[in-house]
Amino acid sequence: MSHQTINVGIIGVSGYTGLELVKLLINHPIFRLSYIANSQGEGELEQIHKMLKGLSLADLPIHKADAKEALLSCNLIFLALPHKSAMTMAKEIFSLNPQAKVVDLSADYRLNATNYQAHYCPHLDTENLARAVYGLPEYYRQSIKEANLIANPGCYPTATLLALLPFVSFINPSCGVFVDAKSGMSGAGKNPSDNTHFSHINENLFSYSPLTHRHQIEISQKCSDISQKELDIVFVPHLTPLTRGMLVSVFATLKSPLTTQEAQEILHNAYKDEPFIRIRENPVSIAQVVGSHFCDIFVATSGKNLYINSAIDNLLRGASSQALMNANLMCGLDESLGVPKVPYGLF
Amino acid sequence: MSHQTINVGIIGVSGYTGLELVKLLINHPIFRLSYIANSQGEGELEQIHKMLKGLSLADLPIHKADAKEALLSCNLIFLALPHKSAMTMAKEIFSLNPQAKVVDLSADYRLNATNYQAHYCPHLDTENLARAVYGLPEYYRQSIKEANLIANPGCYPTATLLALLPFVSFINPSCGVFVDAKSGMSGAGKNPSDNTHFSHINENLFSYSPLTHRHQIEISQKCSDISQKELDIVFVPHLTPLTRGMLVSVFATLKSPLTTQEAQEILHNAYKDEPFIRIRENPVSIAQVVGSHFCDIFVATSGKNLYINSAIDNLLRGASSQALMNANLMCGLDESLGVPKVPYGLF
Amino acid sequence: MSHQTINVGIIGVSGYTGLELVKLLINHPIFRLSYIANSQGEGELEQIHKMLKGLSLADLPIHKADAKEALLSCNLIFLALPHKSAMTMAKEIFSLNPQAKVVDLSADYRLNATNYQAHYCPHLDTENLARAVYGLPEYYRQSIKEANLIANPGCYPTATLLALLPFVSFINPSCGVFVDAKSGMSGAGKNPSDNTHFSHINENLFSYSPLTHRHQIEISQKCSDISQKELDIVFVPHLTPLTRGMLVSVFATLKSPLTTQEAQEILHNAYKDEPFIRIRENPVSIAQVVGSHFCDIFVATSGKNLYINSAIDNLLRGASSQALMNANLMCGLDESLGVPKVPYGLF
Amino acid sequence: MSHQTINVGIIGVSGYTGLELVKLLINHPIFRLSYIANSQGEGELEQIHKMLKGLSLADLPIHKADAKEALLSCNLIFLALPHKSAMTMAKEIFSLNPQAKVVDLSADYRLNATNYQAHYCPHLDTENLARAVYGLPEYYRQSIKEANLIANPGCYPTATLLALLPFVSFINPSCGVFVDAKSGMSGAGKNPSDNTHFSHINENLFSYSPLTHRHQIEISQKCSDISQKELDIVFVPHLTPLTRGMLVSVFATLKSPLTTQEAQEILHNAYKDEPFIRIRENPVSIAQVVGSHFCDIFVATSGKNLYINSAIDNLLRGASSQALMNANLMCGLDESLGVPKVPYGLF
Repeated sequence: MSHQTINVGIIGVSGYTGLELVKLLINHPIFRLSYIANSQGEGELEQIHKMLKGLSLADLPIHKADAKEALLSCNLIFLALPHKSAMTMAKEIFSLNPQAKVVDLSADYRLNATNYQAHYCPHLDTENLARAVYGLPEYYRQSIKEANLIANPGCYPTATLLALLPFVSFINPSCGVFVDAKSGMSGAGKNPSDNTHFSHINENLFSYSPLTHRHQIEISQKCSDISQKELDIVFVPHLTPLTRGMLVSVFATLKSPLTTQEAQEILHNAYKDEPFIRIRENPVSIAQVVGSHFCDIFVATSGKNLYINSAIDNLLRGASSQALMNANLMCGLDESLGVPKVPYGLF
Repeated sequence: MSHQTINVGIIGVSGYTGLELVKLLINHPIFRLSYIANSQGEGELEQIHKMLKGLSLADLPIHKADAKEALLSCNLIFLALPHKSAMTMAKEIFSLNPQAKVVDLSADYRLNATNYQAHYCPHLDTENLARAVYGLPEYYRQSIKEANLIANPGCYPTATLLALLPFVSFINPSCGVFVDAKSGMSGAGKNPSDNTHFSHINENLFSYSPLTHRHQIEISQKCSDISQKELDIVFVPHLTPLTRGMLVSVFATLKSPLTTQEAQEILHNAYKDEPFIRIRENPVSIAQVVGSHFCDIFVATSGKNLYINSAIDNLLRGASSQALMNANLMCGLDESLGVPKVPYGLF
Repeated sequence: MSHQTINVGIIGVSGYTGLELVKLLINHPIFRLSYIANSQGEGELEQIHKMLKGLSLADLPIHKADAKEALLSCNLIFLALPHKSAMTMAKEIFSLNPQAKVVDLSADYRLNATNYQAHYCPHLDTENLARAVYGLPEYYRQSIKEANLIANPGCYPTATLLALLPFVSFINPSCGVFVDAKSGMSGAGKNPSDNTHFSHINENLFSYSPLTHRHQIEISQKCSDISQKELDIVFVPHLTPLTRGMLVSVFATLKSPLTTQEAQEILHNAYKDEPFIRIRENPVSIAQVVGSHFCDIFVATSGKNLYINSAIDNLLRGASSQALMNANLMCGLDESLGVPKVPYGLF
Repeated sequence: MSHQTINVGIIGVSGYTGLELVKLLINHPIFRLSYIANSQGEGELEQIHKMLKGLSLADLPIHKADAKEALLSCNLIFLALPHKSAMTMAKEIFSLNPQAKVVDLSADYRLNATNYQAHYCPHLDTENLARAVYGLPEYYRQSIKEANLIANPGCYPTATLLALLPFVSFINPSCGVFVDAKSGMSGAGKNPSDNTHFSHINENLFSYSPLTHRHQIEISQKCSDISQKELDIVFVPHLTPLTRGMLVSVFATLKSPLTTQEAQEILHNAYKDEPFIRIRENPVSIAQVVGSHFCDIFVATSGKNLYINSAIDNLLRGASSQALMNANLMCGLDESLGVPKVPYGLF
């Protein structure tokens, strides 16, 4: 189809977002996965992700993560690392080549230094932080095209901001904006722990870190950055007995009443040109988005009460397919190249 | 243990709440299940609930529902019928014997006639409606003891009201009170439908009837009846891929800030003498209440933002064990007789 | 990529296998879905499969199933109909155009007339039955290329035959061959029933139709047709609390002992050129095949005891992607065009 | 009810079987739980099992496991420890008091020394091994009444032996007996690992340790001990995406054909006086036994092929309620005291 090939790499290939990036790149018409690395640097890809046996990239050797080696192999690097490790690696990459392209899937470049330090740790790379662009294409598409460093959004912030942003100017800022979010268990990562144990999660539901989860500040700051309005975001995430997907309720008090139809029009106007946002006339459901990059949104009101409801695949739109779309934009490609459209579910 | 025996009956024994009542009555030291009925009136109990084979009540004959026959067999009748059928049956029972005792698990006697008509259908038994008592023991214990007719609360209202009521006087009524509730699938009943199909629910999550579910008015009216304060309740229920249990988030804006500790003290004061309410220091979880009558509650605040979080077994505390406790109270027994305390979960 | 386009149709687009065919055809480089039909013939595709909103085929009109109309629109027709309806439609299609190409996903052309009548109903189209080819490409690839009518194999027979066939000549036919098969719930179809009710299936496991399921005769007959040896197949299928996937245990007694390594070599020899069969060194798992056309197989022995273990996606390799591969072969295309390789799971 | 009280203890209270024992003892009319211990010996019961808050035993102090201290507190001790730890503790208990009563839930006293060493490790307490009784009441009731040391059976052996034993003399020993067993995840214990990770197990199914699992020898040896006949047992266990319950298929070749009715009669004759075994006319299901001590069994034949199908709650009949029944028998009590009869499921 095209004679163009762009070599890309993944540092941090062992986890779920690394795996999903590999799966997306297997079928990408331009990007060629030429470098993968983790902290051990042993064996081949199919040894850590056994379902890839028989696929074209299955025998790709796993390197021990090294910035210099990565830059010799590829033009764009996805970082699927824990926070702090990510900025250490990104800083080294840019010190070797300031023109490198990096999509960071961690939290390291999403917040300003003050907020980052308050919720994570001191920032180790404020220089590159200054030029990082938040990779939510619907709101930063032009900046992404020119960026060298993308802070790929968190899963909860992606689903929440896409729902909330069209309504910010209609919301009464003296009442709280309440976000009740439910995530599939893949959001908790691949490492076994009490909280990922099947017998603890199955037939169970619970919230965690209510009012204190780190994504609350990401939602607040980005809402403010994008809309120039301050809202009092109250964020409560939940773990739910399913693997993949995310459902969000946003509740807010409007300055003055809107009908459901008026609210739907606000949503339609905001996203009429966005192919990966679907406005629904009924409540959204996880089964209609998993496996795809779609964000489905529904809205309803009663008087001054606003309910917005969104659903995404937490590993794709909430991580890896958003990273891929950002990479497409940074490389001047059609943004939807290789971005999955066909949901996996049956509902 | 006691020589006393009270004969009780269940009209509507085929569904889940009927089944759970049977299970509770098998081990009850005073109540003797002497009459069961459904609309067909064929066969024996173990034919419709096969897991009861080998138990003492397995061969109880199923009658065709008949008020007169029921009254000949028993002193207290549980109605586990659809709304409208329930009030038709209750009216007939009381016309035959005004001193009968009835615990109605349907919605028919929960609302005033105006609210009932607006959300269900015209009320057919306003006479008995006037003397029905709402069966939430923590708030109506004395009235229940003297009642002939109990309107057993809905599952969502039980979990929501127990969480919300202690805080009503602290909440700013000009902002909405947002209730995001999640129910296990047994709440959708036993009849197969698109919305109970395994392949539609598994690996899925969605809200239904947001802002329009009938339990919204039950929460509103009872909150007002009990607290004499009007709140603007916004209710969004969800179906979740688990069988049993219910988790509720209540979000509200306080008149003035409370610390989390102050909010916990309000909760402790409200329920310090209630053996079936457990105040938790961490978010509650379904797995710690299913199989029991417990309602677990957690609260946290940030400034004026209030988050209350409760969990119940929807079929027990949200229906059948609450009905049993009401029956105990109506009959002058220890309210906790036969009410299940040991959770089934492993978390 | 290619200038070639082949119009194809689906009669019976409302169910799960119809939906999965649509999803596969959305990305197929040669086949163009130009006709879809069901028994009602109303509305557009996204109205019955809401997750397709926003995709290229979402507004395809749904026709009322009609053989003549279908033949005007397309060169190859997939029948995703209940048994009996399928042969009625196929017979009509071939009576209008004996050179039409049909892939039938029902059971109607899988068995000889005697077996069919004994397990289903009298056969209505023995003429076309005589020329139908069983669409298991690993064993009938050449015949499929020349066929006009493909009997697409059942899900259980696909997973069982691919596991069993390499070993037939080593098995002692005087002992039974025991097949314990476990299917995800999507195998039970889209219509709600007691057996697909979430609260009945979740946290449950059970066998159904043991020793009498209709796929037992399909396995027996095809095993005999292909290997020319008669085995006494004992088949027990199970429903399991997951949506998609199938796991099969085949137990047999060998004529003389084989080591596990010898058994693995038999398997490798049988499938060394088959890109969609993966021989595993550890027991197979559903999560490593769902979303793909792969059949994973593992084998182990102890003395004369043989255990073969296979896994497939019941809707893809067990139905729709196998149908697509058969269609590719019938049309002279690369057999793997559009056939999914990347599993969806995370294991 | 009775003035008798027997003090009992649990060493190893932190895991699932320890927890289930506690739950059963809360309601036991004679046994009083007076001693609980684990390896740390810190805090109170509700700190490790949070769902017990509010129950009568919630503040029981957790001791650091010590044989002497245990014997001062109680007359009968349940050991819910890993193998090897269990026999070390039992040996010490009996060295202090040869008349102590011990129910060991581990594998340590189930096998003869030769088999134990071949599949676990060298046996450290052959003296007590010689007098241990296998705690399957249906087959060892009289011996259990007189025993000081019970080897409580494994979960898989319990479900398999209860199904298989009535048929041993009818089975052709020259063909293998194939056992395909499916366990809920609670069988894998409480410690987090890759194999208990929710995202690995959910929507997945796989066998593990096929033909080599340690319960294969337990089934073989006990089948031989009880029936005096040698069968070639081939055992394949599976992990399934549910928490609790176990389903077993036993496949065997009969010496001569039996009808299904004849096979059912064999089963009825074997268990006609056993209140916790239910012969079913349809395939058994997990949802009809979980929460109870019942073992449900179904049988069907075709010619010489035999299929027996059993279901139990793996944590109750497969561990803790069987241990309780054994303790009842050892103490001269009604064997069913406190043994749960009412299933939890809804099917």
